[in-house]
Amino acid sequence: MTLSASPTAADRATVVIYSGGMDSFTVLHRARREGLAIHALSFDYGQRHARELEVAARVCQRLGVPHQVVDIRAIHGLIDASALTDASREMPEGDYGEANLKDTVVPNRNMILLSLAIAKAVNIGAGRVDYGAHGGDHMLYPDCRPEFVERMNAVAGIANFEPVTIHAPYLRSTKAQILAEGLAMGLDYADTWTCYRGEALACGRCGSCRERLAAFAANGACDPLPYAVEVA
Amino acid sequence: MTLSASPTAADRATVVIYSGGMDSFTVLHRARREGLAIHALSFDYGQRHARELEVAARVCQRLGVPHQVVDIRAIHGLIDASALTDASREMPEGDYGEANLKDTVVPNRNMILLSLAIAKAVNIGAGRVDYGAHGGDHMLYPDCRPEFVERMNAVAGIANFEPVTIHAPYLRSTKAQILAEGLAMGLDYADTWTCYRGEALACGRCGSCRERLAAFAANGACDPLPYAVEVA
Repeated sequence: MTLSASPTAADRATVVIYSGGMDSFTVLHRARREGLAIHALSFDYGQRHARELEVAARVCQRLGVPHQVVDIRAIHGLIDASALTDASREMPEGDYGEANLKDTVVPNRNMILLSLAIAKAVNIGAGRVDYGAHGGDHMLYPDCRPEFVERMNAVAGIANFEPVTIHAPYLRSTKAQILAEGLAMGLDYADTWTCYRGEALACGRCGSCRERLAAFAANGACDPLPYAVEVA
Repeated sequence: MTLSASPTAADRATVVIYSGGMDSFTVLHRARREGLAIHALSFDYGQRHARELEVAARVCQRLGVPHQVVDIRAIHGLIDASALTDASREMPEGDYGEANLKDTVVPNRNMILLSLAIAKAVNIGAGRVDYGAHGGDHMLYPDCRPEFVERMNAVAGIANFEPVTIHAPYLRSTKAQILAEGLAMGLDYADTWTCYRGEALACGRCGSCRERLAAFAANGACDPLPYAVEVA
């Protein structure tokens, strides 16, 4: 699909923030089914789970979706207080609680990623950015709340000569609900990566793995990913 | 000045977005006079006028202000449609008009820079980001308008566990008014860089140089910078 010069070209193109995880994988496929021209954007911010970036590249190549990995590791000095980017810090295990959450928060991450995705949208004439923020257990993260996306949208509408709309279809969904929608679309979640540890096999113990496994359990489905430990 | 653990530590520290140009130079000194602990942040986004970054580093070193240059050149692929970052494009000359403006706009630049500065503020426990957006002739840039800063502030207040306030003291000032305030503070504008061309001497012809020279003329002052051409 190519962009035409018609007045609605911007309405027919979107930049999808695609991490390689379950949520953005589902968002990517959802936007594709809308018939939009998609430009997928992944960010390498020095995360320990860089495996998800490889998975993202492979999926986009297979789908024929243009994909760009933006190396923003140089901003590490700005966000050096998170266990997600600092290998010397211990990765919290177990379910998400507020203490764990604060340890895995990268300061202002979603505002940074959305700002860059909006820049890309403006640059290629796309009128939309798709992003997989979701509610559920993550409502504790300030920048996963509906209010955050609403306020970002208020900025995105006026920050450039052309407005950009942030589309977060799962803002009020749980991970189990997102997975239910993806399974109904026939998606294969072997093509996603979730574990924060980023080793050869998913650890099954970090908060991220547990949340994923709980979503599969809630759907009565088996996770197709291999795990380092036996999971229910 | 060091940060104490008192409840108001965040109120006493700010991250100043400091490009090395006249406006942010004045903002930096203004925040210093407020007695705030300052962390200065400059961005290397591949601008052709990288001279301003050298000037910024020199000023901070002399003032004893911590200064960090964040290399965000890797995001060049997102913003490759601007004459400011693409050496193969012709730099527009003459006064700013809407056509020239659009040629020198880096998509979504101010949202990107503010997002990163807010991340730094959260990371070091500062409650404020200072930023030299100003009105005047620049009101044509969407992200220099008061409405943009107001909406960014609405986001910055809720995007992280701790709120950050964007402080843009010159949002409703012209460049001549900013310069007037700086001259009254006794600042030496030889310590700033403005020319978009970034050669050994300021060109005196690009929109940025002309605007600077007009601000000096409006104040009945002489610009201490040497120019490549004779300027009035």
